[in-house]
Amino acid sequence: MRLARHLLALSLFAALPALANDATGLDAGDLAVAAGLRDQAMQGSEAWDIVESLTTEVGPRMAGTPADAAAVQWAKAKFESLGFDRVWLEPVTFPVWLRGHERAEVVAPYPQPLVITALGGSVGTDGRLEAEVVEFADLAALQAAPAGSLEGKIAFISNRMVRFKDGRGYGPAVGARSRGAVEAAKKGAVAVVIRSISTNSDRFAHTGTMRYDEGVPRIPAAAMSNPDADLLVNMIRRGKPVTLGLDIAAEHPGEYTSHNVIGEIRGRDLPGEVVTIGGHLDSWDLGTGAIDDGAGVAITMAAGAAIGRLERAPRRTVRVIAYANEEQGLYGGKVYAENRATAGEIAAHQLSAESDFGAGRVYALRAGVDPAAWPVIEKIGEVLAPLGVVTEREGGSPGPDVGPIVARGATWAQLAQDGTDYFDYHHTANDTLDKIDPKALDQQVAAYATLAWLAAETDVDFGTLPPRQP
Amino acid sequence: MRLARHLLALSLFAALPALANDATGLDAGDLAVAAGLRDQAMQGSEAWDIVESLTTEVGPRMAGTPADAAAVQWAKAKFESLGFDRVWLEPVTFPVWLRGHERAEVVAPYPQPLVITALGGSVGTDGRLEAEVVEFADLAALQAAPAGSLEGKIAFISNRMVRFKDGRGYGPAVGARSRGAVEAAKKGAVAVVIRSISTNSDRFAHTGTMRYDEGVPRIPAAAMSNPDADLLVNMIRRGKPVTLGLDIAAEHPGEYTSHNVIGEIRGRDLPGEVVTIGGHLDSWDLGTGAIDDGAGVAITMAAGAAIGRLERAPRRTVRVIAYANEEQGLYGGKVYAENRATAGEIAAHQLSAESDFGAGRVYALRAGVDPAAWPVIEKIGEVLAPLGVVTEREGGSPGPDVGPIVARGATWAQLAQDGTDYFDYHHTANDTLDKIDPKALDQQVAAYATLAWLAAETDVDFGTLPPRQP
Repeated sequence: MRLARHLLALSLFAALPALANDATGLDAGDLAVAAGLRDQAMQGSEAWDIVESLTTEVGPRMAGTPADAAAVQWAKAKFESLGFDRVWLEPVTFPVWLRGHERAEVVAPYPQPLVITALGGSVGTDGRLEAEVVEFADLAALQAAPAGSLEGKIAFISNRMVRFKDGRGYGPAVGARSRGAVEAAKKGAVAVVIRSISTNSDRFAHTGTMRYDEGVPRIPAAAMSNPDADLLVNMIRRGKPVTLGLDIAAEHPGEYTSHNVIGEIRGRDLPGEVVTIGGHLDSWDLGTGAIDDGAGVAITMAAGAAIGRLERAPRRTVRVIAYANEEQGLYGGKVYAENRATAGEIAAHQLSAESDFGAGRVYALRAGVDPAAWPVIEKIGEVLAPLGVVTEREGGSPGPDVGPIVARGATWAQLAQDGTDYFDYHHTANDTLDKIDPKALDQQVAAYATLAWLAAETDVDFGTLPPRQP
Repeated sequence: MRLARHLLALSLFAALPALANDATGLDAGDLAVAAGLRDQAMQGSEAWDIVESLTTEVGPRMAGTPADAAAVQWAKAKFESLGFDRVWLEPVTFPVWLRGHERAEVVAPYPQPLVITALGGSVGTDGRLEAEVVEFADLAALQAAPAGSLEGKIAFISNRMVRFKDGRGYGPAVGARSRGAVEAAKKGAVAVVIRSISTNSDRFAHTGTMRYDEGVPRIPAAAMSNPDADLLVNMIRRGKPVTLGLDIAAEHPGEYTSHNVIGEIRGRDLPGEVVTIGGHLDSWDLGTGAIDDGAGVAITMAAGAAIGRLERAPRRTVRVIAYANEEQGLYGGKVYAENRATAGEIAAHQLSAESDFGAGRVYALRAGVDPAAWPVIEKIGEVLAPLGVVTEREGGSPGPDVGPIVARGATWAQLAQDGTDYFDYHHTANDTLDKIDPKALDQQVAAYATLAWLAAETDVDFGTLPPRQP
């Protein structure tokens, strides 16, 4: 197979341009346009200015807040000023969660303040709560605790996330955040505190969603910074009971309707066939949402705009989507997928990709497409190679907001980014513009523009995938 | 001169041990003991456990707070458990400043919260204050503003501290913090906000002292994090008026008496002659004071304790001083100097050193001594050389708490530390235990034990210096 592809590749560049078109739907001119898009982005893209504008003029834009509405207006205006052919808003409705004050301290035996933040969706403490803390090495240890053993206590899950380039330390660690409250409440706990799902040692607490289960008491849930978790561990190992005070306010004021903001470059031949790229427009409230996910919005807006400025539009439509409320439940991605399914447009979605892993450089191209379309992916990979991007046939996954449409059968591509430092800043007050390297941003624009343009220019069908549980 | 010293050094190691004693007061046995102290510390010292204990069991210990009293009791007990011959408290009285709440946000044209902290000594805003902000590139630019030109405005000083190994970026930058309120008030400003005196880009505001002048209105003063200052600069350059909201509470509840905590190893021959090492026991309230200056206290306590465990005490007394309230005006160092002057003990202070520049490795030995005693410093430097420490005849300065006794004529030594990252953490919530490298701490214990032991073992008089303005 490898040899066969190799021979095919040789033939493409040598004597058989017609065959090239058969396998990839792309000719030398198309590849030259892609290389031009790529190289121009590397010379300097608009992405930095876009993310600077978003973080400066809107800043934190948590779903359901006034800043969410400001972000939607910002995105609409930005798409228009960037010259997209069509810009529209797609309503997305969800329940709102609002953070109030949050304070924590060690009451005894060594009184001192702690840096914490409520997890997204948590209830408040309904006044100040004071209780002894019981440490668990991880979620499994908490699950193994005897029923009722935490009556009146605060559960503390102290496991530490491990750093990897691809962020694979997140999965094993994040259960403490998403499931901690339910598991602690089952044992009788009055609250749960976790070590932040984080890879660094700065004193920022990392927020993120948690959930409650029907029939299990809803207890407050908060994360503390890594240094605070270290401190608590060091206190606990001295052997005296450690009492914490927690005072957390939070509100669930009802539903809100925000919007996916969509800009498209209309395809010249096959406008009904759509390649989508995008990021999510909402952020958590603590930082300015620069790397999560102002960067993704900026990269894909800039990539789309670069395609829009070409002399000739690609065959298919390129759609850039700034998704609503990813952080609190992928609401924008789900609504986008539902609406496309209702309209019978899943198969028309030729390839979907999302940038939502910070602002580090792209190092791999992966995809989930019909095997017959793989030569197109390989060809895109060849154009991406000078950016330091390798094409990987195995593994990968669509971005979070692309997940719902992929679950309905749509195909996807992933431009995997170096996320080595992503979980240093993710979901903290420290997610700010200065964490972005403008040159890395340009590299990503180059990668997204190349991917989107070639996927939209080819007429090879990327097929569909077997629908699955989202 | 260099050649002469070189020949002398050769002679010391070769044929003339009697001459060695004449020039340095140290023989081969003394140097062997020093090397043993040094090498044992490098194998692992007690400093980590000491600073872990202080930061865990006491934590933040701002002067005049209940944690200040807890720190004094902690230090006394720690000196005693480390086997110091004599441990005592020296009262130090000072005015107290207490931080209350502090909130800031951009009100218009781009509403979003800002991370700020009140500067030490600042008055509060007396409710919420809202005013337009005017940017100045540095303190000099503010000073050059026309009288009355800031009537009803908030002055913003945006200069950025530069990173150097020896921290020399601090001096040019810190005037904005110490003098900003006075200069802004002279022009009519209602408050001053500054870019934190900081070398990194994490979203921590750095506190630190500021002062008021008689006859100039006392206006609130706060620092914002570097990312927040960037944000404000980016907003201002868009050209629309930028309005800030500030709500800062602070109290000046009166005087408090804390204590210098002193432990000493009594000299075997010359107990009235004293070599002092130390750090300051107080910290700011935001972090746990690990690098500023738990490290200094721990390093010098561990060094003193190592000397105390030797079979034979040095000729002179070694005194380890945990100074009170360095942060808000060098109160502990001033009282220590005054009391020694009153007792006629300045000349008996043979050499004084302080560790108060974080937890980075020592790279240079410098001193201010009678030129006749310089061969002793050179000899100490030879024992320190394997630690990567060079001896520098020029430059250097005593630590902040040593300054007052040096101003009265006492001699000093400096073990200059690598402070490359010191101003990343200094005076922030992020000054926590995890920022300390235990191996670097051991190296510093090795250096301080070597210095203190050799300075206390020699009978060469370090002399006195011309008294000067403190």
